[in-house]
Amino acid sequence: MSVLIVGSTALDSIKTPQAESPRLLGGSASHAAVAASFFSPVNLVGVVGEDFPKRYIRLYKSHRINLDGLQIQPGKTFHWSGEYEANMNNRRTLLTELGVFETFTPTLPAAHQKAPYVLLANIAPSLQSHVLDQMRRPKFVAADTMDLWLNIAMPDLLALLRRLDAFVLNDSEAQQLTKEDNVFNALKKIHKLGPKYVIIKEGSHGSILSGPQGFFICPAYPLHKVVDPTGAGDSFVGGMMGYLAASKGPVEHHIRRAMVYGSVVASFCCEGFGLLRTTRTTRQQIDHRVRELERLTKF
Amino acid sequence: MSVLIVGSTALDSIKTPQAESPRLLGGSASHAAVAASFFSPVNLVGVVGEDFPKRYIRLYKSHRINLDGLQIQPGKTFHWSGEYEANMNNRRTLLTELGVFETFTPTLPAAHQKAPYVLLANIAPSLQSHVLDQMRRPKFVAADTMDLWLNIAMPDLLALLRRLDAFVLNDSEAQQLTKEDNVFNALKKIHKLGPKYVIIKEGSHGSILSGPQGFFICPAYPLHKVVDPTGAGDSFVGGMMGYLAASKGPVEHHIRRAMVYGSVVASFCCEGFGLLRTTRTTRQQIDHRVRELERLTKF
Repeated sequence: MSVLIVGSTALDSIKTPQAESPRLLGGSASHAAVAASFFSPVNLVGVVGEDFPKRYIRLYKSHRINLDGLQIQPGKTFHWSGEYEANMNNRRTLLTELGVFETFTPTLPAAHQKAPYVLLANIAPSLQSHVLDQMRRPKFVAADTMDLWLNIAMPDLLALLRRLDAFVLNDSEAQQLTKEDNVFNALKKIHKLGPKYVIIKEGSHGSILSGPQGFFICPAYPLHKVVDPTGAGDSFVGGMMGYLAASKGPVEHHIRRAMVYGSVVASFCCEGFGLLRTTRTTRQQIDHRVRELERLTKF
Repeated sequence: MSVLIVGSTALDSIKTPQAESPRLLGGSASHAAVAASFFSPVNLVGVVGEDFPKRYIRLYKSHRINLDGLQIQPGKTFHWSGEYEANMNNRRTLLTELGVFETFTPTLPAAHQKAPYVLLANIAPSLQSHVLDQMRRPKFVAADTMDLWLNIAMPDLLALLRRLDAFVLNDSEAQQLTKEDNVFNALKKIHKLGPKYVIIKEGSHGSILSGPQGFFICPAYPLHKVVDPTGAGDSFVGGMMGYLAASKGPVEHHIRRAMVYGSVVASFCCEGFGLLRTTRTTRQQIDHRVRELERLTKF
């Protein structure tokens, strides 16, 4: 089955202590869509400006990502620029030019409204809800977020949470949302806000799922070198949703393995700037790392 | 088979934001010995003063810990006092009274010199080496350490490393030792210093083994509440060595499972002040948590 992915589509200029790379294809929806495309057909919903490079359209298409929902509007594409510190964990934003993203209203083509799997990648929670308003009984809805929305749009986020099957956030966001240091207590509190499945991402330490079948401790693939972690979280949730959409039967039977697949796609994402490494990845390479993770965690 | 455990035996006065508890049984060897005792016979080597409470001698004995190597000397027992911050990760030392520990020289009773499994729990690396000088061809030698020795006794530590089968340290110590942010690169560098097995502890994120069969990502047991993490690392390595000593056949067949057992004993350690929770634990409870960890990591 197919996945509908809504989120930001952007140009990212990224600096690390080793190198920098300007105007890469980025944005939560771009990373998630490419990640999901390894497993199932993807319908992308987003907005770009007239300056959006044709080669990035071709890149989406080379991953068989349906672009009927990608609006091309007069003006400039969302441009984000950020710099990482040596440990690759802390980053600071150097520049944010919203461009056409400032007035983005995701409008779903009729064919997209029946999508069974919906990933609301990181954008304003009011827009994420607006997408759900247009959907006809999706099978499984997951959303990601970022600290910004916890700071400036908490009521919108709380309204969204009541409508989700799965909510994905990172450890510091979970702490901010619940005032809980302990990740397992934070998971418990987030369930009470609505979602049946809650996933807390812990970067190089992997992620933790809390769902109807209890916890799952999902490993991260061991990386000797992180080139650029931008989009790793989006790749994780995109890969997970793509894998789920490709799996027959109930979500609870597949969600652990789906997370492991997402984790592996995120590992490739970290090995290059922007989407440079992810887009060169093959399904075979992904399967190989999943088998490695099986070996690395078996006892 | 039995494990010989050498390290500090102390009285710990511990403060957390919730509570405080004075003059608990503590020290690296105490935690490691109790942890190991769930799996195999333990011979403890350490020193205490004349003020050492009789009830702590009884406590060791209730875990069938052989005390032939425990020196009782005129003077005071090593007393450490520390305070944890709210997140339980950062602690500061309030007081260190070395007492009889200041002049401690571990001397092994003849029967101990043939111990097959040796755990050099955290003490000065020169003393850890002094113990090895007295051993007759042990089967497997593991050592733990702390940041203090990296700061003041690096040449001694490097000399020790060349004599070890396994070296266990935490993530910040590994970074200090190797100047490597990346844990997998740090593991590689530490192998070059001697040990065949290197284990990096990552607190609530578990631990990572690097050995002849590659990496193993060892999970931590999910804890909703950490009462006092003092001794968790010692419990981990103690439990691991006890389990190894109880297992027939080559170490490489058992070390992963041994780490998981150590991880579970450490989880009990964190649930009470000092050794209060660990000493009330049963083998059945440990086995139960190991089975839970199997379920929590399976995909």
